[in-house]
Amino acid sequence: MKAIENHHCSFPKSKKSLLILTLFVFTLFTSEYVSAQEQGQIIRLAKLQIDSTQLETYKAALKEEIESSVRVEPGVLTLYAVADKNHPTRITIFEIYASIEAYNAHRETPHFKKYKSITKEMVKSLELTDAVPILLKAKASGN
Amino acid sequence: MKAIENHHCSFPKSKKSLLILTLFVFTLFTSEYVSAQEQGQIIRLAKLQIDSTQLETYKAALKEEIESSVRVEPGVLTLYAVADKNHPTRITIFEIYASIEAYNAHRETPHFKKYKSITKEMVKSLELTDAVPILLKAKASGN
Repeated sequence: MKAIENHHCSFPKSKKSLLILTLFVFTLFTSEYVSAQEQGQIIRLAKLQIDSTQLETYKAALKEEIESSVRVEPGVLTLYAVADKNHPTRITIFEIYASIEAYNAHRETPHFKKYKSITKEMVKSLELTDAVPILLKAKASGN
Repeated sequence: MKAIENHHCSFPKSKKSLLILTLFVFTLFTSEYVSAQEQGQIIRLAKLQIDSTQLETYKAALKEEIESSVRVEPGVLTLYAVADKNHPTRITIFEIYASIEAYNAHRETPHFKKYKSITKEMVKSLELTDAVPILLKAKASGN
């Protein structure tokens, strides 16, 4: 037991320092990497006004498109679609994509093209706003 | 061994049916319960216009408030704050609370009151929109 303890304690100080330095650099690199990834994200707010006579059909098409996109596309991170409580034909979609490439790829998918084609006559107006994050926080068990 | 097998096989069919029925009802109840919980959620879009000379101070206060709320309050599920890329003083916050009680409790917390007090003179306009979910989908590993 003593021998083992000695062996443990005799771990050279220079190697210890090297280990600590390596861990430090690795941590820095990892956090930089994560931060860079988040910086590359595309955030978009889509505001739509839907023809009231086709609202239910529109919502069904939108749900199908969101469901497919988040399930199939690795770069589609978040699609939160909500309707104004007092004006149900006013819809907002909060969208987060991993990168500009992911966003461009998304627009070329069969499910997105199908959604655009089906809903073309239902959307009375569409306003897209590019956004940058201030802070995005959610419970781990949240939506 | 045969005795055990027989015992297992002799499990009365009526009891088996009862077990299946119980599981079925339980599953139904559980899914209804989850759905009811989600239905009780409060979703709100806050749109703010900030005084450009105080934008950085405002964003720091907002970040602190979001950080505290999501960390401390069980009923604050999501606070996503973004700025319009082309008009950085236009800010949108996408908010999800577990219930109306959670939302009301949130507004009484010291960190929320501090945020409101600090930012009172920085916010040029505030528009709150109550929203209802159409579909909220995000990657499990997303934000």
